[in-house]
Amino acid sequence: MTPPLDIVIQSFHHQPNLCQYLSSATHGTFHRDSQPSYDRTPTGLEPVRHGSSPKQVLLNHLQNKTPKRETRLAESFSHLLHHLHIEPPSRAKVQHINWDLHKAAVSPKQVISEKWHEIRGSTHWNDPSDLLHPWLRREIVKYGEFAQATYDAFDHDSSSEYCGSCRYNKSKLFDQLGLTRNGYKVTKYIYAMSHIELPRWLERSHVADPWSRDSNWMGYVAVSDDLETRRIGRRDIMVAWRGTVALCEWYDDFLSDLKSIGAGESKVEHGFLSIYTSKNCATRYNKSSASEQVMREVIELVQIYREKGEEVSLTITGHSLGGALALLNAHEAGAIIPNLPITVISFGAPKVGNIAFREELHQMGVKTLRVVVKQDLVPKMPGHFPFNEGFQAFGQIRKKRSEWDYTHVGTELMLDACSSPYLKRGMMNFPGFHNLETYLHLVDGYLDSTTPFRADAKRDVALVNKHCDMLVNELSIPPCWYQLANMGLVCDSHGRSKARRHPDDIPSPTREIDST
Amino acid sequence: MTPPLDIVIQSFHHQPNLCQYLSSATHGTFHRDSQPSYDRTPTGLEPVRHGSSPKQVLLNHLQNKTPKRETRLAESFSHLLHHLHIEPPSRAKVQHINWDLHKAAVSPKQVISEKWHEIRGSTHWNDPSDLLHPWLRREIVKYGEFAQATYDAFDHDSSSEYCGSCRYNKSKLFDQLGLTRNGYKVTKYIYAMSHIELPRWLERSHVADPWSRDSNWMGYVAVSDDLETRRIGRRDIMVAWRGTVALCEWYDDFLSDLKSIGAGESKVEHGFLSIYTSKNCATRYNKSSASEQVMREVIELVQIYREKGEEVSLTITGHSLGGALALLNAHEAGAIIPNLPITVISFGAPKVGNIAFREELHQMGVKTLRVVVKQDLVPKMPGHFPFNEGFQAFGQIRKKRSEWDYTHVGTELMLDACSSPYLKRGMMNFPGFHNLETYLHLVDGYLDSTTPFRADAKRDVALVNKHCDMLVNELSIPPCWYQLANMGLVCDSHGRSKARRHPDDIPSPTREIDST
Repeated sequence: MTPPLDIVIQSFHHQPNLCQYLSSATHGTFHRDSQPSYDRTPTGLEPVRHGSSPKQVLLNHLQNKTPKRETRLAESFSHLLHHLHIEPPSRAKVQHINWDLHKAAVSPKQVISEKWHEIRGSTHWNDPSDLLHPWLRREIVKYGEFAQATYDAFDHDSSSEYCGSCRYNKSKLFDQLGLTRNGYKVTKYIYAMSHIELPRWLERSHVADPWSRDSNWMGYVAVSDDLETRRIGRRDIMVAWRGTVALCEWYDDFLSDLKSIGAGESKVEHGFLSIYTSKNCATRYNKSSASEQVMREVIELVQIYREKGEEVSLTITGHSLGGALALLNAHEAGAIIPNLPITVISFGAPKVGNIAFREELHQMGVKTLRVVVKQDLVPKMPGHFPFNEGFQAFGQIRKKRSEWDYTHVGTELMLDACSSPYLKRGMMNFPGFHNLETYLHLVDGYLDSTTPFRADAKRDVALVNKHCDMLVNELSIPPCWYQLANMGLVCDSHGRSKARRHPDDIPSPTREIDST
Repeated sequence: MTPPLDIVIQSFHHQPNLCQYLSSATHGTFHRDSQPSYDRTPTGLEPVRHGSSPKQVLLNHLQNKTPKRETRLAESFSHLLHHLHIEPPSRAKVQHINWDLHKAAVSPKQVISEKWHEIRGSTHWNDPSDLLHPWLRREIVKYGEFAQATYDAFDHDSSSEYCGSCRYNKSKLFDQLGLTRNGYKVTKYIYAMSHIELPRWLERSHVADPWSRDSNWMGYVAVSDDLETRRIGRRDIMVAWRGTVALCEWYDDFLSDLKSIGAGESKVEHGFLSIYTSKNCATRYNKSSASEQVMREVIELVQIYREKGEEVSLTITGHSLGGALALLNAHEAGAIIPNLPITVISFGAPKVGNIAFREELHQMGVKTLRVVVKQDLVPKMPGHFPFNEGFQAFGQIRKKRSEWDYTHVGTELMLDACSSPYLKRGMMNFPGFHNLETYLHLVDGYLDSTTPFRADAKRDVALVNKHCDMLVNELSIPPCWYQLANMGLVCDSHGRSKARRHPDDIPSPTREIDST
């Protein structure tokens, strides 16, 4: 039976915008009762009539066979729920956990210089047990933390004039986030814009004169320091791409034609490509595109370190939308830079392109490790499943199915959220399942679906609740606890409060972006 | 025309519980359309029928003449809106403000020892211009800041085992909140419980073994230090009572019979009296009632300082519910302690008792300054206006009207939120109008409804948005910005995060409450 949508919507209560969106999307077509308020008929969805005006608008859309995006989204969620098999909580497991966890929170680092080719996927991790090797596990967490940094440092505060930028300048980023221990140094920030309208992608300041009207901080390039380089056996150039929680709303965009990328048959999703390639001379931060910014920096770094006689690799990471951009970036780097070992480690990423895109990446030697939580919706989109089933009734959409040639790339590391006794279960917690910190927690402790969670997992469990409500109540960790004191408001010398950046942290195009 | 309730509800978006409550209260009886979904008929409210089930439940209640509290609440709000005359924003004023405000944020303190009797209301502030004298203004702000401390230090986090307590022990409170400059020292914390069920009053921890199951931190007693005592001309014992934002939901309680207080004819509201007087030997923090705790401390302090030959005064303050408790406290102190100058300075307080209660306070010499923002709903409740008009149809309620003898006490200082160019206007912002920081901002700068806001007002305007969304966007101060870094989570020595109190700040009955 399809679960009621109102219950699904409640699970998004920590993402008020999404909740509001879903609520408006489903208002009038679904009830609080245990049954959806429509009946399936041979001609499609036959709504029950209630007669109040906002409902009627939606219902008219259904009757006229002009499905609104909202209706389709509601349908899609309903069917995803139907197809997901989320196990009920197992209280027995929970009771045997030591909640105090008085252990070091960081795993020891091993020297992996001898094994780096295998770890980075030279054999495509074709032995499943490789994927759970502690050395690889530690590396996946490292790159995941670099991706997580793009969320933790992002300024979401629309009342701030710097909304949409990184809170710290690139020399302070890792220090502010406690990531210096990973042994990398940020060399470049990447900014992106989009020429096409995408749902809830660009975060904008409400103030009259913001730092940028068009661009968002979208990621960064970093490079391993000498110590880390010795440990991992090569100079690693790392690119981390920021994601978005709103991918589920990119519905119209996923229905658009796939766009060509490169000279071959490769085609990729319209919106991802737009973010990766858009530029405009009239903007402050995107006189060059994200693609141009990142490629210029990577090429320069490769050249610098190769001239020093060092072995160089490129590792690209990202979560959600960031995982999609990582693949576009890898495809471009693979085409442009000869003989560069390129690895993509993505978390909760959607499908990006067609079969030719996958094949070209393969031919370029790009290794892709795609980390997926079984209960996460985003890696299931876009594609035939589950949309084709949800939309059989809509002729308009069905005719586009032949163009829906999305396919996943690379090797999948599937994690089961039910394996962790620390995580809330039940079907209510979609944002929690998609959350990157949930992924990192599972990478740290998952063994397989029949084996209990790794007892010696080191990562601080509390991190999971940074931006969601995913930890069982016994842990007493508040949901969405990651916040600045007083939202970053500081007192000036006159005793007046104002949200301010340290001058060094104020974004500046001349400092950060070449305007050529 | 009565405004649509859905719009009212949206104005509570920063108080999700209240919003949810109001939404459920009105769902099904009001529409998003510009007209309420009922028609007035000679027999009362005749609902338009829509037939969906949650609506039907409410409608059945109406038809059976058994009005639910929710329905009455919705009605009440609707009528309040109808009667409030909130002016549209005046953009002209806003444009002439210097937003940078590079001025000292604290008013200078004058020595007021010669004038303290007048300032504390010996003549009942019968010259209206007295109420706006800078010396009195400064004192009102001082006591308001003491009341505000009960909000700022209160632990609302239901995932904390200390939810409902004060975050800091009494020796640290003023230091943590930046209030040491006011020259008082906290001597006692007050805890309260209630024997009757009150809507959303008690804040409870969700953890299995919290600091207390029954009691909340409800206020404190403090006393002026030697320096402040010299400045204000007497040793001032100060009691600050914590309020609640949920007073509007105390509907059933306001309909109950008034309860007798003291030996005379005085009667007061049922719920306020319950919080003030409830105790239970089985509890940890309310083996004695709030009344017993505060009176024991005040009597002891009066005795100590009188024995030293000092002149002593008692000033009791509170906002909202806290203002109501302040009056109960003043009534008891006036009856028990002879010749003690007692002043109540309340902010946004509701009516508390009958005419006899008011008269007894007057005869005891209690001076009450009641600060009221014109646009705030709470000071209008409970009472004939606006409830009698909203409920003419409900016979059940009408018969109780004779018992609704609520009347206000003391001298009113009426402030108009429209006078401040920094504040958002429009009818949407009820929580903002009731907010104590809004009150303090207006006390600081209000002159009269025809004169522009005081140009040399000193108080930091940003404080208004601590717990609400009340400042115009031009100021770029985020709404509800008052928050702890990472919700107070701190890393232990193992690198694990946990919400913890410093051992000194963990509430302890043996430390704080005599168990006699």
